[in-house]
Amino acid sequence: MATSSSTEKLPRVLIVKRPDAMAVLGDGFVASTKFEILKAFESPLPLPEFLAYHSDSISAIIAPVAAPVTADLIRILPNLRLVVTTSAGVDHVDLVECRRRGISVANAGSSFSEDVADTAVGLLIDVFRRISAANRFVKQRFWPVKGDYPLGSKLGRKRIGIVGLGSIGSKVATRLEAFGCQISYSSRNRKPCVPYHYYMDIEEMAATSDALIICCELNEKTLRLINKDVLSALGKRGVIVNVARGAIIDEEEMVRCLREGEIGGAGLDVFEDEPNVPKELFELDNVVFSPHSAFMTLEGLEELGKVVVGNIEAFFSNKPLLTPVL
Amino acid sequence: MATSSSTEKLPRVLIVKRPDAMAVLGDGFVASTKFEILKAFESPLPLPEFLAYHSDSISAIIAPVAAPVTADLIRILPNLRLVVTTSAGVDHVDLVECRRRGISVANAGSSFSEDVADTAVGLLIDVFRRISAANRFVKQRFWPVKGDYPLGSKLGRKRIGIVGLGSIGSKVATRLEAFGCQISYSSRNRKPCVPYHYYMDIEEMAATSDALIICCELNEKTLRLINKDVLSALGKRGVIVNVARGAIIDEEEMVRCLREGEIGGAGLDVFEDEPNVPKELFELDNVVFSPHSAFMTLEGLEELGKVVVGNIEAFFSNKPLLTPVL
Repeated sequence: MATSSSTEKLPRVLIVKRPDAMAVLGDGFVASTKFEILKAFESPLPLPEFLAYHSDSISAIIAPVAAPVTADLIRILPNLRLVVTTSAGVDHVDLVECRRRGISVANAGSSFSEDVADTAVGLLIDVFRRISAANRFVKQRFWPVKGDYPLGSKLGRKRIGIVGLGSIGSKVATRLEAFGCQISYSSRNRKPCVPYHYYMDIEEMAATSDALIICCELNEKTLRLINKDVLSALGKRGVIVNVARGAIIDEEEMVRCLREGEIGGAGLDVFEDEPNVPKELFELDNVVFSPHSAFMTLEGLEELGKVVVGNIEAFFSNKPLLTPVL
Repeated sequence: MATSSSTEKLPRVLIVKRPDAMAVLGDGFVASTKFEILKAFESPLPLPEFLAYHSDSISAIIAPVAAPVTADLIRILPNLRLVVTTSAGVDHVDLVECRRRGISVANAGSSFSEDVADTAVGLLIDVFRRISAANRFVKQRFWPVKGDYPLGSKLGRKRIGIVGLGSIGSKVATRLEAFGCQISYSSRNRKPCVPYHYYMDIEEMAATSDALIICCELNEKTLRLINKDVLSALGKRGVIVNVARGAIIDEEEMVRCLREGEIGGAGLDVFEDEPNVPKELFELDNVVFSPHSAFMTLEGLEELGKVVVGNIEAFFSNKPLLTPVL
């Protein structure tokens, strides 16, 4: 009985949609003796009824990108005090409403940065050196019958413009320096103590870059930042890599540019309306897709679990959040 | 008449098979006013007759890997004085016979090393992070219908064993250090002033590595160096990347290990019997192929042309070879 009553007092943490990490690692992903998980996605109840039934008991949410924490959701949870995202980005959380209500917010911190940076570089090499295209070429038995190899372009001395030199962007820069690339960056402000050329104007950076790598967060200032003018400045041989958020690029315009050869290629991990991807690009040899999996490694997901659990346990022990946003 | 007679005195340089670089760049690849090219592959004559007809006039050969310079070929060219390969490796040239005849040999030097190193890293990222597999996953419209993403493994902290720390191997090491990998190497001798752990025994290195990257030259000591024991030591999660020569690996054994899950994956640019590749691996998601194109970039081929022409012009001006082998 004692155990049962102490269990009843554990803070209850809502999860609306199963995070990818939980699909891979199972419930062990966020196992803790200090809080209890409420999995809406496993309930036979429709979500509104599930929430109505449990609303008073929910004091925290674990929020994957696919399950936005809207003002509407927040309003029906009177005792909500903490939101922890399973992503670095928090654009799917209504921060204004959270601030108004005094709800704390933590994100995944920089636990993903290395893996995302690795994927960004992997996609860039793939597009410039045509790794996926070469793989298809061999598997389609074109070698050497069809003599025109997928000829790549040298990575060394390429001018790479990094959009957003935060935790991910700076790791992309370090990696690409080792390949002999020339790094420049754009961001809200010039960074002190950074050896790379700074561009205040992103169109100007695009015009002098062989590739742009999008690593910034999505917010009202970066929404469709990569528009027609930027893509046009990037030019026919220019490559774009996006490991940030789909909506930072004007996707419709990018699709047109790729189809009409107005830019040189793309490596895309994120899309405007996931999981819908622009299928009209599937036939293009110079476009490489991944399913928003830049952050997805077994080791990275295990690390993420520790960060999520650590934030929740810290919060309910009145300790500082590990990776606070609000 | 003066022009014609001076033309007749130009050294004649034989090319038996069209180098890939010439297929891409055209004859401009090795254009020079100081020597004349004899393209056997464009002649209507069968090769033996072509050679019999021109044998006395040939004083140099440009030798791609696909056209070995055998003792038999050398014997029918009494005035041959120089062989220039279009590759870094010279295993397709009978060096013993060249030495006996006093024939000079030059290779492509290190003009390819950066591009080959870039491909090695690209293949490694592709296998660990499943870039090609993710691309297929999206294009086959499995996202998110079929929920099991191709989950990758983190590159950081991976223990990478580099087989042969020469021009290519050391560039692979520099690049992978930037990803936070732990580098070790094996080679004939321990290198002075190198910060990486040295293994004299390759099987021991395989046993303590998450991946082996083959960067050494092919010679009698490295032929099938990566045998059953080494592959077995590498183990179920171990990855192998080969950008050197196919015959350094016991290919039949590697194919068996991959099919039976005894090693974790492979990124293969080279094969034992090119252009024949082990097609029984095509269905495996964890194997990435490229058609001996690790060195192939537009910029690299242009650079190669300069090195080949530079060697031939230097030789016939009695100057030192740019990239001498013999």
